[in-house]
Amino acid sequence: MTETIKTDVLIVGAGPCGLFAVFELGLLDVKAHLVDILDKVGGQCAELYPEKPIYDIPGVPMITGHGLTEALMEQIKPFSPTFHLNEMIETVEKIGDPEFRVTTNAGTVFECKVLVVAAGGGSFQPKRPPVPGVEAYEGKSVHYAVRKMEDFRGKDILIVGGGDSALDWTLNLNPICKSMTLVHRRDDFRGAPHSVEQMRQLVASGKLDLKIGQITELQGDNGQLASATIKLNDNSVAQIKCDAMLPFFGLTMKLGPVANWGLQLENNLIPVDTGTFETNVPGIFAIGDINTYPGKLKLILSGFHEGALMAQKAVKYVYPDKRVVFQYTTSSTNLQKKLGVN
Amino acid sequence: MTETIKTDVLIVGAGPCGLFAVFELGLLDVKAHLVDILDKVGGQCAELYPEKPIYDIPGVPMITGHGLTEALMEQIKPFSPTFHLNEMIETVEKIGDPEFRVTTNAGTVFECKVLVVAAGGGSFQPKRPPVPGVEAYEGKSVHYAVRKMEDFRGKDILIVGGGDSALDWTLNLNPICKSMTLVHRRDDFRGAPHSVEQMRQLVASGKLDLKIGQITELQGDNGQLASATIKLNDNSVAQIKCDAMLPFFGLTMKLGPVANWGLQLENNLIPVDTGTFETNVPGIFAIGDINTYPGKLKLILSGFHEGALMAQKAVKYVYPDKRVVFQYTTSSTNLQKKLGVN
Repeated sequence: MTETIKTDVLIVGAGPCGLFAVFELGLLDVKAHLVDILDKVGGQCAELYPEKPIYDIPGVPMITGHGLTEALMEQIKPFSPTFHLNEMIETVEKIGDPEFRVTTNAGTVFECKVLVVAAGGGSFQPKRPPVPGVEAYEGKSVHYAVRKMEDFRGKDILIVGGGDSALDWTLNLNPICKSMTLVHRRDDFRGAPHSVEQMRQLVASGKLDLKIGQITELQGDNGQLASATIKLNDNSVAQIKCDAMLPFFGLTMKLGPVANWGLQLENNLIPVDTGTFETNVPGIFAIGDINTYPGKLKLILSGFHEGALMAQKAVKYVYPDKRVVFQYTTSSTNLQKKLGVN
Repeated sequence: MTETIKTDVLIVGAGPCGLFAVFELGLLDVKAHLVDILDKVGGQCAELYPEKPIYDIPGVPMITGHGLTEALMEQIKPFSPTFHLNEMIETVEKIGDPEFRVTTNAGTVFECKVLVVAAGGGSFQPKRPPVPGVEAYEGKSVHYAVRKMEDFRGKDILIVGGGDSALDWTLNLNPICKSMTLVHRRDDFRGAPHSVEQMRQLVASGKLDLKIGQITELQGDNGQLASATIKLNDNSVAQIKCDAMLPFFGLTMKLGPVANWGLQLENNLIPVDTGTFETNVPGIFAIGDINTYPGKLKLILSGFHEGALMAQKAVKYVYPDKRVVFQYTTSSTNLQKKLGVN
């Protein structure tokens, strides 16, 4: 049984809006933990467009998703937020007025006064390959991510996909597997040219079996894969022995467990009050792309504004008896001390 | 009679919110002119804290008011806004549905579909010195700014104040005046040390009469000053001959003529709808520190959000028949072309 983590505020989602919320809460002496399903901070900025330029961050004529994430991490450093990455919040239980007990899929338990949902379009989840019955093997012998490489030592591995993830794991797991097959639907790979070249060398040296085609059927028992049937592009059929399969078909966004937290939803979005960005449940706020209100635009700059107003209401739940005076970072030596610049 | 300037949108105030509004309007093909009472863009950022660090612009851990202004000017460059500085809007007349005729104190006349009030705390206006009857001389022989130096050639000039403006004009006008007196309430100047030193040299060489004290009375006729009475700090009284007086007591913010444009006001602020940031007058919007709504914070980042939502409604007045598709700068080649980056 893990220890319960107590925090003022738990932020669901470490994308740009979740990160900047740490800053606005921090100025008011409110501490935050953040949970994100991705293995890194930055949300869509980090996952979907790390190298793509963004032009509409006010006062920043051009910045990449990665650059914006870095800048926000620098900006919130004085408030030392704690990150719980690779975790997804599953259950939210009201235990006070307001106070919540929140658990993740990794078993982490939080108790917080305020919950801020900054989950963007929802949870990034791996796309399931279009193979009948694949669900039965998931988590046992079909994996959408490699958590520990050692789990794959000595295995007959089947990797599916043509992007960087498929190529990277082909290259990384090849030295420790028993045998390896890479299946892609056409002989053209989207991954980095250098990785493609290294993969071709493995094929040439007999260490990798490359099949161009699509998996049509899986065989196995009780979740343990034994073999897969592949329809090749020349219309022949191949049968591949395998005890682990790694499909890399990219990520998709799903609302996920948020749907079960008792929040009112409108087309998979969370309606909020525009004065506080609080949801229909007192103490639960929603900021960024996941909320909705009249005039809503899914812009990062709007999520920043929403986080600032949210913080003014959240602080009242965290410090119900404290009188909060609104101050400016430019003129308040008190705020400048918190930022470590005075 | 000046020609009427026709524009889609007229923005009142060239502070950070007014500047960023140009960007959001520009992405939607809406052109803007801006009017500001200051002689430079940047509003409070440029006037009150050009060199002071700001820490709460999201994604920008630290930037000065001047730096933020420069960055915003760079960001809106692709949309070529036209600035009318040193002008204050005086009258707003509704001439269409919506369409407005707007005039400035310099006689400029605009006709626009949409008016965006981004006037911050209002108009920066010079502080009036506490001298009885000074109003009678204003604009004739008492001036709060120097528009043309030549107007002061050969005059007996009285300059009042101890900051940079008072010192700069003491140094600049001294070579062309007939005589000059500088009055400050104590023998300690806030201006740049080098300017203070140069001013002391003028005193030493007999070209400047420095009086430490306060002006208590003005004498003259029909707005034309003849002399001023100064109560010196040793309690003696001096009578100074002068035909022009330049008081530099700093700037203060006043709502100004906005109060007369038919807009609903609440404590000198303009209530707006949070979905569009439109005022009670269709076609007139208010963004930034001058507006009010539940939860309002006077933060620059909120003004940016307000400008983005305003633009979505403004474009409907400018192009009533066009279907506007919401696009992102990161993914839309169409927007990237407008920004000159694709």
